[in-house]
Order: sequence, then structure tokens, then C-alpha cells
Amino acid sequence: MYSVTIRGHIMIAHSFRGEVFGPAQRLHGATYVVDVEIRRRDLNGDGIVVDIGRATDVLHAVLERLNYRNLDEEAAFAGRNTTTEVLAKAVFDRVAEAIRNGDFGSDANAIASMRVTLHESHVASASFDDSL
Amino acid sequence: MYSVTIRGHIMIAHSFRGEVFGPAQRLHGATYVVDVEIRRRDLNGDGIVVDIGRATDVLHAVLERLNYRNLDEEAAFAGRNTTTEVLAKAVFDRVAEAIRNGDFGSDANAIASMRVTLHESHVASASFDDSL
Amino acid sequence: MYSVTIRGHIMIAHSFRGEVFGPAQRLHGATYVVDVEIRRRDLNGDGIVVDIGRATDVLHAVLERLNYRNLDEEAAFAGRNTTTEVLAKAVFDRVAEAIRNGDFGSDANAIASMRVTLHESHVASASFDDSL
Amino acid sequence: MYSVTIRGHIMIAHSFRGEVFGPAQRLHGATYVVDVEIRRRDLNGDGIVVDIGRATDVLHAVLERLNYRNLDEEAAFAGRNTTTEVLAKAVFDRVAEAIRNGDFGSDANAIASMRVTLHESHVASASFDDSL
Amino acid sequence: MYSVTIRGHIMIAHSFRGEVFGPAQRLHGATYVVDVEIRRRDLNGDGIVVDIGRATDVLHAVLERLNYRNLDEEAAFAGRNTTTEVLAKAVFDRVAEAIRNGDFGSDANAIASMRVTLHESHVASASFDDSL
Amino acid sequence: MYSVTIRGHIMIAHSFRGEVFGPAQRLHGATYVVDVEIRRRDLNGDGIVVDIGRATDVLHAVLERLNYRNLDEEAAFAGRNTTTEVLAKAVFDRVAEAIRNGDFGSDANAIASMRVTLHESHVASASFDDSL
Repeated sequence: MYSVTIRGHIMIAHSFRGEVFGPAQRLHGATYVVDVEIRRRDLNGDGIVVDIGRATDVLHAVLERLNYRNLDEEAAFAGRNTTTEVLAKAVFDRVAEAIRNGDFGSDANAIASMRVTLHESHVASASFDDSL
Repeated sequence: MYSVTIRGHIMIAHSFRGEVFGPAQRLHGATYVVDVEIRRRDLNGDGIVVDIGRATDVLHAVLERLNYRNLDEEAAFAGRNTTTEVLAKAVFDRVAEAIRNGDFGSDANAIASMRVTLHESHVASASFDDSL
Repeated sequence: MYSVTIRGHIMIAHSFRGEVFGPAQRLHGATYVVDVEIRRRDLNGDGIVVDIGRATDVLHAVLERLNYRNLDEEAAFAGRNTTTEVLAKAVFDRVAEAIRNGDFGSDANAIASMRVTLHESHVASASFDDSL
Repeated sequence: MYSVTIRGHIMIAHSFRGEVFGPAQRLHGATYVVDVEIRRRDLNGDGIVVDIGRATDVLHAVLERLNYRNLDEEAAFAGRNTTTEVLAKAVFDRVAEAIRNGDFGSDANAIASMRVTLHESHVASASFDDSL
Repeated sequence: MYSVTIRGHIMIAHSFRGEVFGPAQRLHGATYVVDVEIRRRDLNGDGIVVDIGRATDVLHAVLERLNYRNLDEEAAFAGRNTTTEVLAKAVFDRVAEAIRNGDFGSDANAIASMRVTLHESHVASASFDDSL
Repeated sequence: MYSVTIRGHIMIAHSFRGEVFGPAQRLHGATYVVDVEIRRRDLNGDGIVVDIGRATDVLHAVLERLNYRNLDEEAAFAGRNTTTEVLAKAVFDRVAEAIRNGDFGSDANAIASMRVTLHESHVASASFDDSL
């Protein structure tokens, strides 16, 4: 299996509901450094997994819709905790949608699976990993 | 699959038996930066894999029993080389035991698998990865 | 000159006033990974710059007062932008005050200078560096 | 599953053919920081996955044949784009060949799989992962 | 003293003249991860060292003129070895020129000094540091 | 001022005397990732600060004399705590001696100053910085 991994980041505010979150129930924020690993069984005719330029543009467009925002006020997450895990899944779903829409090019249907990792600090991260 | 990864570290002394280890047969030591990745298929009702606060407390408790010690004198490793691989397995087993004991909370039985990685330098690490 | 550097982190929300900040004028947030470098000309009798355990406790106490908060509502920053630069200076001042209060031990008056660096992402950081 | 990961690096020149590569069609270059993860189900009698000294020697020998070269002029890659993905596979194949040749020692037939990752910058990498 | 540090990167080909360079006399290449630290004594009225958005744009424009090129063919470096040290100075000079041209805004004359660091691998880097 | 920084590492055992060290009074160990920054005002005729190959050889030779050892039994440190600060100074002194002995080449007398940093974990390091 081949893969390529590209990186971006977002800076957001949010708060969590549930005693398990302790002080993180207060309005606070995070920088998420976002790694997206894209996998396919074989390379395309150019010798690549995806056009990394297009993939980076897609990732940045996905992140732009989250960046510099208070996620407590985003309709997409209404009634849900925007934990690092939930956001990893949200980025995964939005990149997957872009792939299905053809934003990665015509041979992107060969993409087998992805892994999205959000690093919230130097000591903690969360990932969502699935087939497409 | 979802996962969260948390980090801690230990500083230990030890020596190895076997010609393959060359100068590492002498008493020396290591800082191990320890990453524990915990995976489950679905998130719990709070939108998380585990209570990261409790998981961190468990990891620190497990590492505390190894930290600032000469592992050559620890009964748990008598007659064995405490290689990075062996220590990754030992941390895995002790965190897994804590999960079975309920130290991660009541819904931790949904944890599917874990990966424990010990970084021994900027150029070498070892991992143990298994289902629970 | 000798130095030791210790690391902690905070996760905060805030917004900025001023057109120069563009989308960062909206309520958003950041993880700041905080490095504090403490310098002195000569080592003390134990062969150290400071008791790193006490220094870490002081840093964590300073960061605890900022962590998981919306800095727009903190009296200490009323009327000011809590930029990475301003926060680096705030952490510097609070650690310096702890040193003057004796929280680092009796020989901490030998500390010559400090540098506080806040990493806001994998591509940007800010520092404040001064003598004591 | 156990694994060990070792690191090396190369500095090469090359160019790519294909409009998808944009400015990378020009002669340029890269530093690739190379991570090789080697996996086996059980540890050998010494408590290790492989003799990390021998594995590092093999990796360095493999990288030496690529290092400080213009890959456009290497016969091994004639007619192909030496993308990060293609080079990850090439390093994988050469390390696998060394394992089959006995360069890792007599019990290396227990190695189950490998993953080779080439980091081309702080924001992009590619991997090849397969069983042996 | 306050500072902010921003990061970019380039991927170039080049060769060196001089026996001291050994195999690096051959045409090869490098990824340089570039950190620019910009310092001033006091913050401006917005509470910042520089407009980090403008500074990043300037850095990217400077790097764009070097990126994906064979530096052996660049007139700017004719007759000179484009070592990591020489390139650190070249980036410094070009960013300094942009500051003098007003590309960082009207109050950038308060910038006291800069440090440009080029990381050529995980084990080597070079810097140029000077007042403006 | 120009500088180059090179990296190596050692894995040692030791113990500390003094209540301030708490559990680190027990025999334990550390991996030290060692960065040596070498500075000079101007570049030499080849466009470099030092021959990085020779400098790396010298650093490795210095580290080899410390590596895989119990520092409590090394005559060079008899009666002293081998804290991270003390070891940073020891590496500094030994590299400085090699420079004076001509191991860096004939123009190394132009080296103005050095900084040696030992990273003992992902959250702590110590440095010694001085002119030559």
C-alpha cells in the first residue's frame, strides 16, 4: 500500500458539555495541526498517489471553513461536542466528499482509505481512519 | 476506527545480555518518550474514545513504577533483556490491565486495540500493537 | 552561560481588535506550547541552574491560571490584544515574579535572564527574552 | 505485532515529467528523511525484532547508493518519475532484498512486513507498506 | 526583546566546488525548512512584532524565487557555493530588503534584528543572525 | 554571525546526590540528543563555517567516550553530579579542545563561540553557551 501525508492547521474556539471534560467545559480553544494520509494500492501513471498540489488545495479549503471560528456557533456541530475525535471525523468526511466530487482529479476513485490526525498539543492527538 | 494518542516519558538504567548488543551490554540508560494510541470503533456518548484525563493518569501511574530505576534490579524483568520492544509490551500489558480493572471508566470495554511506542532517540523507536 | 528549558502548554480562546488581524478578529483559539529557558552564569552547588522540579511546578501554576479560558474575559488583559507576543511577556512576568517570591529556592537570585517562547502552530511562534 | 523504526536521510536532485508536477518539472532536489519500520509477530531469543545495529548498517548502505546523486541520471530509475512514493518503494525493495540475502541475520525470515516513509518537508511525506 | 518566528520551505538542486565537500561535489539537492525570527525591542500599537500575514507573504515570495530550481544556474549565486550558510544569508538579505522597501508595513523600521535558519535534515542546520 | 548546528546522541546511566533530585538520586539513565551550534563572524573561502563532515566526526568521537556508560564510574566526573547542565559543559569543553588541537582544520581559529544543548526528553533540555 502506498500513501502520501499532507499537513495543515486551524485555530478554533469551543467548549464541551459533560462532567468528564472538567475545566474544558469552559470556553477555550485549540490549534489543531492536521495530517491527512491518503492511501491507494497502486500508483497512477505519473507515479503518485494523488496530485499533492490539488490535495493540499482541497485540505486548505476544508480547513478554511473551520479556521478562526467558535465551533459552538457552527450549525454543522449543533448539539455535539467538537472533540478532537469528532473534528478528525469531520475533516475526514469533508475531504472524502471532495474526492467523490472529483476535486482530486479523475483517477482519485482508486483511493482506498484515509487517516486524518489532529494534533492538539505536543502530548495529545486523535485520529479517524477508514476506507472510502 | 477512531484513536487518541497520549504521551509520557521515563528515564531508566539497564544493561543487555547477548553479543548482538555490543557496547549496550554495559550498564547504560535511556529516556523513553512513550506514546499510547487507544482505538475504538465508535465514540462514546460524550464524543470521545476515552476520558483523556483518566487515561493520562493511568499512563503516568504505569510509567511511575518504571521511572528513575535500574531495570536490571526489577523483579518484573528478571532474566530478560529490557529492550525497547520488551518495554513497549510491558507498558501495553499494564495499561491493558488498568483498562480491564475499570480505571478508564465503565465504557472502556469498547476499546478495540492499542499501540504503545517508545522513542529511545531521535532516530530509533519500537512499538507493540495488539487488540485487547 | 548555562540554561535549562522546560515545556508546558495551554489551550485558550480569544479574539483580536485591529484590521491587521483579518479573520483572527473573530473569536477563535490556540494551543500554545510554552518553552521557558532560564539562564545563569554559573551552576549552583548541586550542579544545576534551578531545581527543575520546582521550576516545572511554578510554570504549571502560572499556566493553570490561563488554561481553558477565554482571554477576552480575563481582567489581566482588559483592553489589550492577547497576541502570542503579549502572552509570552505575560508568562515571562509571572515566572519572574515567582522567582522574586522565592518559589524557585533561595539561590534563584543568581538567575540572569529568561526567554519564554510560545509555539502557536508548527509554523509560527513568538518569544520574549530579557534579563531579570 | 512488534516493530522497530530506524531513521536515515538522503539529499538528491531530480526532475519530473508530467504537467501535474507544475514547477517540479524543473531540475530541483530534496532531502528525504527516511524511516524504516520493521515488524514481526514475536521477538527473537534476544528480545528484539532485529539487530538494530545491522539494520542501521543495511539502511545506510541502501541510502548511500542514492545519496548526493541526480536521480535523473540513475539507470535504476530510467524512464520513471522518482516521486517520493516511487523512492519509498525503491528503498523498501532494496531493504527487503538485503533481508532475503541474510544481511539482517539468520532469524530475519520472521520479519512479517515493513513500512518505509520518506519525509520530504515538515508538511509532506510518502510511504510504502507491505508484507515480505 | 520580542520576536516572532515564521516557517517556509524550498526544494532545490545544486553542487559544490572544493574537495572539502566530498560527494556533495556531485549534483544533488536539498529541502530547506526555513525559519525567520524577527526581533524588536517593543511591540507596536496592535501588540505585535510584525503583521505575521504580511511577513509570511514576504517570506513565501522570497522563497518562491529560489524554489524548484537548480541553484548552479542562478545568476545571483554565480561563482559561489550555495551552502546552507550562504543561502541563510541570501534569505536574510532578501527579507531585509523587503523590510526596507516597506513590504512589512510602515512601522517595520522598529525591527532590530533577524535570524534566518535553514534546516537541511533532522541532524543539520545553518543560520545567519544580524542587526538590521 | 553565521552558525551551523549538528546533532548526535548518547545513552548513559547515572545517579545524583542531593535531596533536590528526589527519585533521580536512584540509579537511572537518559538518552541525550546533543546539538552543537558553532558560530563564526564570516564564512571561510569555501562558503562554510566549518567542514561539517569533520565536525560531525569530532562530535561522534567526543560522544563515543560517554556513550553506553555508567557515568557514576567515570573518573572524569568523580565527586560531581553529571546533571544535564554539567554534561553540556563537558561536551562543550571536549569539542573546544578538539578545535584547539586542529581537528576541525586550519581555519577553525575563526570560530567565535559555541552552544551545546542536551535534550533529555520532549519537555526538558539544558545548554552551555560561551565564546572560545
